[in-house]
Amino acid sequence: MAAEPDVHGHAGREFFTTRTVAEALAGFRPARRTGAQTVPLGEALHRVPAAPVTAPHPLPGFARSTVDGYAVRAADTYGVSEGLPGYLEVTGAVRMGAEPRVTVGQGTAVAMPTGGVLPPGADAVVMVEYTQEAMPGTIEVTRPVAPGECVVRADEDAAAGAELVPGGRPLRAQDLGMLAAAGVTEVSVHARPRVTVFSTGDEVVPPETAELRPGQVRDATAIALTALIAQAGGEACQGGIVPDDRAALEAALRVALPGSDMIVVSAGSSVGARDETAAAVARLGPPGIWCHGLALRPGKPTLLAECAGVPVIGLPGNPRSALVVFRLIGMPLVHEPVVRARLARDVASAAGRLDVVQVRLADGLAVPLFGLSALLSILTAADGYVVVPEDATGLGSGTEVDVTLYR
Amino acid sequence: MAAEPDVHGHAGREFFTTRTVAEALAGFRPARRTGAQTVPLGEALHRVPAAPVTAPHPLPGFARSTVDGYAVRAADTYGVSEGLPGYLEVTGAVRMGAEPRVTVGQGTAVAMPTGGVLPPGADAVVMVEYTQEAMPGTIEVTRPVAPGECVVRADEDAAAGAELVPGGRPLRAQDLGMLAAAGVTEVSVHARPRVTVFSTGDEVVPPETAELRPGQVRDATAIALTALIAQAGGEACQGGIVPDDRAALEAALRVALPGSDMIVVSAGSSVGARDETAAAVARLGPPGIWCHGLALRPGKPTLLAECAGVPVIGLPGNPRSALVVFRLIGMPLVHEPVVRARLARDVASAAGRLDVVQVRLADGLAVPLFGLSALLSILTAADGYVVVPEDATGLGSGTEVDVTLYR
Repeated sequence: MAAEPDVHGHAGREFFTTRTVAEALAGFRPARRTGAQTVPLGEALHRVPAAPVTAPHPLPGFARSTVDGYAVRAADTYGVSEGLPGYLEVTGAVRMGAEPRVTVGQGTAVAMPTGGVLPPGADAVVMVEYTQEAMPGTIEVTRPVAPGECVVRADEDAAAGAELVPGGRPLRAQDLGMLAAAGVTEVSVHARPRVTVFSTGDEVVPPETAELRPGQVRDATAIALTALIAQAGGEACQGGIVPDDRAALEAALRVALPGSDMIVVSAGSSVGARDETAAAVARLGPPGIWCHGLALRPGKPTLLAECAGVPVIGLPGNPRSALVVFRLIGMPLVHEPVVRARLARDVASAAGRLDVVQVRLADGLAVPLFGLSALLSILTAADGYVVVPEDATGLGSGTEVDVTLYR
Repeated sequence: MAAEPDVHGHAGREFFTTRTVAEALAGFRPARRTGAQTVPLGEALHRVPAAPVTAPHPLPGFARSTVDGYAVRAADTYGVSEGLPGYLEVTGAVRMGAEPRVTVGQGTAVAMPTGGVLPPGADAVVMVEYTQEAMPGTIEVTRPVAPGECVVRADEDAAAGAELVPGGRPLRAQDLGMLAAAGVTEVSVHARPRVTVFSTGDEVVPPETAELRPGQVRDATAIALTALIAQAGGEACQGGIVPDDRAALEAALRVALPGSDMIVVSAGSSVGARDETAAAVARLGPPGIWCHGLALRPGKPTLLAECAGVPVIGLPGNPRSALVVFRLIGMPLVHEPVVRARLARDVASAAGRLDVVQVRLADGLAVPLFGLSALLSILTAADGYVVVPEDATGLGSGTEVDVTLYR
């Protein structure tokens, strides 16, 4: 494992596994789900619900009018027209936010504001535009309405127990509105993954350094990674700048490991520095290095490892490559939108092989999409994918699986 | 101006200017730029610089190698090849982060790590792959290099005084990295616009309300608007719920006006409630109401006004319409992600009216979601929305459209 610099200061060459980005995205999946925590709705934007949230009662909870007009019995309007209007006696008016005090009987109508409660006896609302006052207390109706017209049913936005927001999908503004409408004022969400960021390199100094000595560069990568981690829904912890020294890096990583859900190291530009990082990571614990090198430009010298269940990403030393790789490989690991679904049919898989099965989501079911690997259309038809672990010989229809959604 | 409810509870009709969304976006521009404030770089993500930020000194500040290899005088390599290598004496090695202690003279080379300082006398670097040790202290060079090859000039990332980030564009992760590299650790940015949010309606109660009386609805709009304001880079202030009473609303708006950069009122669904809002806003101060009504579905009953230099947006009462209008008209600072997709079916639209159609994305198709404006569930099911232009009478199935994605 050791890679000592030779007399000219260059490290010896070692041959690690190189992978494609697609292989890394599908196969490097050590990310643990963080635990759940409860947050108030006002702080829940972009947070990821730990479970689906269901409606505690029907919404809107009462039949309401969608227009300004008159609550009627639809049958009383059948056959009316501009030439032959119907006449209805107006027996009262519904007030916003209040229970109706009147009932609609045959031949009568009740004035309705938009959003008002449909009174008992009424089954539709005639828009005010299709009425006019014939005499005080009586209106002409010039268009017929069907039962249910201009009315939102009591459970039309959501039935009691219906899913308001799915688990696993970040909450958007309208999701917060829906939850507020249902009286749900706090949500159980996944804790933000803690991502510890290290910069390595004897030449790297903090951004606060006013005067540089020749050869020194300020750390540009850590602050940019911190921003990307926040964008991905994580919480960055500053590990600081570590010199190009295997023992120092190994010690720093060991301290960070227990409190991190992920570790990111911008690993120095030179071959020697990279090999030091690889050696330090390899000593941290099993299963260790997953790949050393990506088929990617910029970003080839990328190290992916898993140490004691924590993903460790060794990024290239130059900031541009580091940010490209972190956007491609790191941000999805911090947060990929995942939903739970049941497999719509059996999926076969050989033991010892990781299978990535494309699926379409429909009615809470994950429908596997089979076809030749060469068919790109399978991928464009998919909503996401399911990974069948290496030790599984297949998954039966009805198995609950995690579907990683494409964004 | 007064619009008294008639005996049936309906307001009288008034005729205000109706505008298209394009007119509103182009013509309703009272938004003031907020003042500047200085924030540390670590808190500057997505903030908007008040002025361009320039490089205080050249970057990287010294000529550095882009590869592991040997610093040379390019002329010493002219004409060399695998068959006829050149021989150079290795006189030393550059260490990362340190000033070179050696000079490159004719016939000599100095070992370089990636990112190291180019020593005096050298004008290029030969990659280590094109060298081999001929004997201790001497290398063979098998490929010629041109002057400047494998070298970053001292001012190649930025010359002194060059613009590092422009004013007015929200800062991204990579912008923070660039500023950190230049030693800029705080930035002058525009203060977040303070947007005060009011909800009106006798039927509206706080989301915390556990038990609703018939006809009551919880305030879904305020929390969703608060989220959109935050996404747009603003700071929401909660004005609370105001009853459908002109004097109460006018008083609340007067209190909010001096401390607000913008005011948003979700103005009640019924015609009467909207007219009360319009009347209250009209009394706040010149220049007053800019338009009352947008050629937009959903979202027609929208009020745009400017009172004492502060834009006031009166939103439709139902949450879905309110959120559509606020995204279109109220989030001018936001860059929202847009994707191209083909419509999965025909969408009808009246000429002269802008239609906002909610869509779900599937297989590269935008599938329109139709339903009542009152249904918030349409919005939570949507991936984004398509705008049908005012001059279109509809869009045919298969038309390529821009889908503005929800985040």
